[in-house]
Amino acid sequence: MTNPARARTLPAVAALPALALLILAGFALGAPAIAQESLASPLPGPLTDPALWPVPLPLLMQGLLVMGLLAGLTLFQSGLVRPGASGAQAIKGICGSALAVLAFFFIGSNVLMVGVDGGFHGTFAFFPLAVEGAGPGAMAEWFLRAPFAALPVLIVAGALAERLRLVPFMIFAVVLAAVLVPIAGSWSWGGGWLDRLGFVDIGGATVLHSAAGWAALVGAVLLGARKGKFTSNGAIHALPTNSLALATFGTFAGWIGWFGLTGGAVLLAVPEAGPAILVPTYVNTLLAGAAGLTVALILSLIVGRSGVMTRGLQGALAGLVSISAAPHLPMPLVALAIGAIGGLLVVIAVPLIERLRIDDATGAISVHLICGLWATLVVPVIDPTVSLTTQALGAGAVAGAVFLASFVVWLAIKLTLGLRIAFEDESGAQEHRDLGLDV
Amino acid sequence: MTNPARARTLPAVAALPALALLILAGFALGAPAIAQESLASPLPGPLTDPALWPVPLPLLMQGLLVMGLLAGLTLFQSGLVRPGASGAQAIKGICGSALAVLAFFFIGSNVLMVGVDGGFHGTFAFFPLAVEGAGPGAMAEWFLRAPFAALPVLIVAGALAERLRLVPFMIFAVVLAAVLVPIAGSWSWGGGWLDRLGFVDIGGATVLHSAAGWAALVGAVLLGARKGKFTSNGAIHALPTNSLALATFGTFAGWIGWFGLTGGAVLLAVPEAGPAILVPTYVNTLLAGAAGLTVALILSLIVGRSGVMTRGLQGALAGLVSISAAPHLPMPLVALAIGAIGGLLVVIAVPLIERLRIDDATGAISVHLICGLWATLVVPVIDPTVSLTTQALGAGAVAGAVFLASFVVWLAIKLTLGLRIAFEDESGAQEHRDLGLDV
Amino acid sequence: MTNPARARTLPAVAALPALALLILAGFALGAPAIAQESLASPLPGPLTDPALWPVPLPLLMQGLLVMGLLAGLTLFQSGLVRPGASGAQAIKGICGSALAVLAFFFIGSNVLMVGVDGGFHGTFAFFPLAVEGAGPGAMAEWFLRAPFAALPVLIVAGALAERLRLVPFMIFAVVLAAVLVPIAGSWSWGGGWLDRLGFVDIGGATVLHSAAGWAALVGAVLLGARKGKFTSNGAIHALPTNSLALATFGTFAGWIGWFGLTGGAVLLAVPEAGPAILVPTYVNTLLAGAAGLTVALILSLIVGRSGVMTRGLQGALAGLVSISAAPHLPMPLVALAIGAIGGLLVVIAVPLIERLRIDDATGAISVHLICGLWATLVVPVIDPTVSLTTQALGAGAVAGAVFLASFVVWLAIKLTLGLRIAFEDESGAQEHRDLGLDV
Repeated sequence: MTNPARARTLPAVAALPALALLILAGFALGAPAIAQESLASPLPGPLTDPALWPVPLPLLMQGLLVMGLLAGLTLFQSGLVRPGASGAQAIKGICGSALAVLAFFFIGSNVLMVGVDGGFHGTFAFFPLAVEGAGPGAMAEWFLRAPFAALPVLIVAGALAERLRLVPFMIFAVVLAAVLVPIAGSWSWGGGWLDRLGFVDIGGATVLHSAAGWAALVGAVLLGARKGKFTSNGAIHALPTNSLALATFGTFAGWIGWFGLTGGAVLLAVPEAGPAILVPTYVNTLLAGAAGLTVALILSLIVGRSGVMTRGLQGALAGLVSISAAPHLPMPLVALAIGAIGGLLVVIAVPLIERLRIDDATGAISVHLICGLWATLVVPVIDPTVSLTTQALGAGAVAGAVFLASFVVWLAIKLTLGLRIAFEDESGAQEHRDLGLDV
Repeated sequence: MTNPARARTLPAVAALPALALLILAGFALGAPAIAQESLASPLPGPLTDPALWPVPLPLLMQGLLVMGLLAGLTLFQSGLVRPGASGAQAIKGICGSALAVLAFFFIGSNVLMVGVDGGFHGTFAFFPLAVEGAGPGAMAEWFLRAPFAALPVLIVAGALAERLRLVPFMIFAVVLAAVLVPIAGSWSWGGGWLDRLGFVDIGGATVLHSAAGWAALVGAVLLGARKGKFTSNGAIHALPTNSLALATFGTFAGWIGWFGLTGGAVLLAVPEAGPAILVPTYVNTLLAGAAGLTVALILSLIVGRSGVMTRGLQGALAGLVSISAAPHLPMPLVALAIGAIGGLLVVIAVPLIERLRIDDATGAISVHLICGLWATLVVPVIDPTVSLTTQALGAGAVAGAVFLASFVVWLAIKLTLGLRIAFEDESGAQEHRDLGLDV
Repeated sequence: MTNPARARTLPAVAALPALALLILAGFALGAPAIAQESLASPLPGPLTDPALWPVPLPLLMQGLLVMGLLAGLTLFQSGLVRPGASGAQAIKGICGSALAVLAFFFIGSNVLMVGVDGGFHGTFAFFPLAVEGAGPGAMAEWFLRAPFAALPVLIVAGALAERLRLVPFMIFAVVLAAVLVPIAGSWSWGGGWLDRLGFVDIGGATVLHSAAGWAALVGAVLLGARKGKFTSNGAIHALPTNSLALATFGTFAGWIGWFGLTGGAVLLAVPEAGPAILVPTYVNTLLAGAAGLTVALILSLIVGRSGVMTRGLQGALAGLVSISAAPHLPMPLVALAIGAIGGLLVVIAVPLIERLRIDDATGAISVHLICGLWATLVVPVIDPTVSLTTQALGAGAVAGAVFLASFVVWLAIKLTLGLRIAFEDESGAQEHRDLGLDV
């Protein structure tokens, strides 16, 4: 059976195991030497203050929760895509997570954290400077940040579901987690120029969610819609979903994991507050998700169109994104209101984006891009010392940078490997059988 | 397409977003003022003693686990209902949880905790007195109690699966989490009259499980059985299940989440013991679940009737309910025996309730009502200072109150909106497609 | 309907409830006496040092994570088997876990831990010596070790999926968790002869994973392949999988739960290090899993044969097994390389074992036996003070003992009850309906 797509992608695929071989070589030759000397200095500041952090257990627990968020988001997407695509979507979620962790280990954490010093990026180096040989504080911080770096990869996978081939996705995942997201992150989290200007984005509303949303938007335009989504007479079709039970459990798991995203980010941003800062953060995260779900579901019931259940689930995620920029600051009632408006936004945005004939298979652009912007811009209402201009500048700068960079990367992949699966029919979407996956 | 049921429910649905609008108005007008002043005094006692709780991390962790219990119970029910109803059941689980959290935030926590003082209920006020502006101890306690309040909502959803419409369910969920469960809870947990008499129900065997069981029983009688469950010749039919793999994973997740229910309740009940009290609590919770599952499965295998696998899963939950009243007190062997008897009870109760021609789609009444009573009445065996009379009085008082109150509420909804889905056939149960959900 | 298999197994099934009755009798007669006196002395050493462990919370958290690993592994297997067998596989997972916990409670923990003293096994007694009346440190240790003991049961269930009857599985599960695994564990974890020789197997690479792999291998040979797996002309057929979405979420959950396995084992092995030892352990566990998944997926894509997605998931588990022997010791880069080689091994081992016409339905032998050996033998590379000879001796001794003992047990069950399900067809595999389960 000669599959031209397969033949074309084999060279690209063959290039990737070089990573593994490189590691094995390093293991055989250099590992013992690495083990003796410390190549990275531990991060300064109260994070490693033994009085405040006798053991960095809270950071580890938040990191595990963020891994649960990745698992939940993957299941949410596997539930929402068409039945034939659910296996491929699941694999994209877990392999995208694994690739992002490795890419962030070797490259991304240097770009994000090492030597940013008010500038536009950290150090471009292919070695885990911030982890290998580091102290427990720095290692625990890396353990928490690694699944953070995988989150944008899953957001992109969700928007482009059912039609993006596996190997192009894997390549984009590595670029996103190694370079694009770490650069945007370094501007704010790494102490870069945006941080110096007073930009506040503790939980990644801009540097994770809207950044990923822009990358997904560019990809959705270049990739085109799923066959059968938009017909030539202008009609928009609701495509069947695999399993709302899976999508719901995935949303639940993602909600629980989100406490690691907001809680972990706050622990890193205001370490001097100690773990007690988790209390208002958790209360706000619970309320924002509940309010987003409730508002989106009830509004959808009133409007009475299709996708009522799906919109409720997206509303929960939208509420959670909306609270992400400064999750510990607002009073509970305010957090609830911010999440409720997130639920409202997703009900408006999903049909709007469809009317622009952009096909977002799981609503990821509405949830993460639109509500990521809302989350960033609402911070001055919570904390009057934060400037709306700076927030808008930060959101705009990340938007422009990610838009351009991801356009270049998507286009390069499209022109070389191609992006779109070869076989597709009205009912089946991406082939999910083990044999015959369009890689 | 004119759907009379939809037309009839739209006014009711339209009433609900008032909640969201109210919040938004409060956000625009009053939020900054709220942020400055503290409206609720922190809870007194050792819970906020900085020496015992330098950070209330254990409370937060238990709260996350209880959220996992809600997710697990939802998946368990989505797995046990007929395939056509699994999506609707999942949505009821997650939207019921969100509504319960909001209802408990605005109303229920006041009724449960604020100013009970030996009486029959706390304060009826539409404002989060116990949360907004409170200290970390009180906020962490609320974070733990909020998912507690959602648990009865899910129990009711499980019993009435496949035939209860969505909007009536949502209304009952709000009433249950805002008023009914908090009143019953205030008698024991809030320091009300039952607590003064020496009634012991730390993990909610009576005030969560059997209370929800009574509300579900009344609902099941008023709603009637699923079409095809009982036929006119007196036969009882086993209806197909969606996925035992999902039901099993949901049971597993619920079991893990149950450590938050028993553990969190014990932390709140005996804060002077410190987090070390979690150790016997966890060991007992593990053993009671394992014993309940084992006994129920083996007995079902011997009896050799249908539902063997389902009964095993229900047995695990039954064992866990059975240990809930005083989970830290018994020695491990005793906890194991109590859970084993719970497994035995569920094997007896499920066919018995069916023979009464009451249709409980997921066995929720057997698991939560019957074993909740067992758990409450066995406490004097564990702790001889507890009076069996008081335990029976408490169980009876909650039974009577919830039975009457939920009868009034169910009947009011039935006479106005109606309870039962309009379209139903032998194979399909509640429609689960996004479009066409019978709201 | 006369089912001869059912008639034959009823006596065996009837024997099991004796366990429950025994417990109930003990509850009625002896429990109060037990409650007053402490029958087990708390474990000595720094584990119970109040300065290091004011509360054994980290142990409890790791124990909950390992329960999540059991849940995840069950879902992974339910996803990989044929659709008709997914319910039965799920039930085997959760009832195997419950039985293992009870067997370990009554017998296994004595064999593993009580009075080993450099020898070949602990105490054979039918009473929870290490739990009942013990202090919080010893109880927390038991809480962590109990789900450890259930892990080998699930590994065996995975290899023998779709054709092993339920009751024979339950009997083997009890023997495995009560005797076989605890004996092997006592040699290393319990301070037995292997520990005295300097054998290092902190996370159970040999005493859990390869031990279970040997038991599964013997079972697979005695049980024979699934009908349709191997045809008489020598062909090997890929059988359909139930749901890769479920298998993926199960892998994700298992990965997250694995932090409890490695983390908990390290806490018990080097308690003097305190909870900070979790930091390198967690980083290594994250990287080994990511590397195993990535290498297995990419190699499978290059080879281009069937099972690409499945191999990726197995690769994640293979990477995690590979790091289990000494998870806190290697530098992150080395841990990554060890996991990557685990991913490579699984890609080689799965087709190799198939070519030997041994039918391993979920790849459990490749993942747990092969990578368990690799994990054990690579320890001297990480820690030069460990002897390769001793590691090989330990792996060989456990292999020989488990191989022989499990052969005897499997054969005894085969000759009395029989092992294999009676009805089986090309498409259906083990019957999963509640009624008609071949017990």
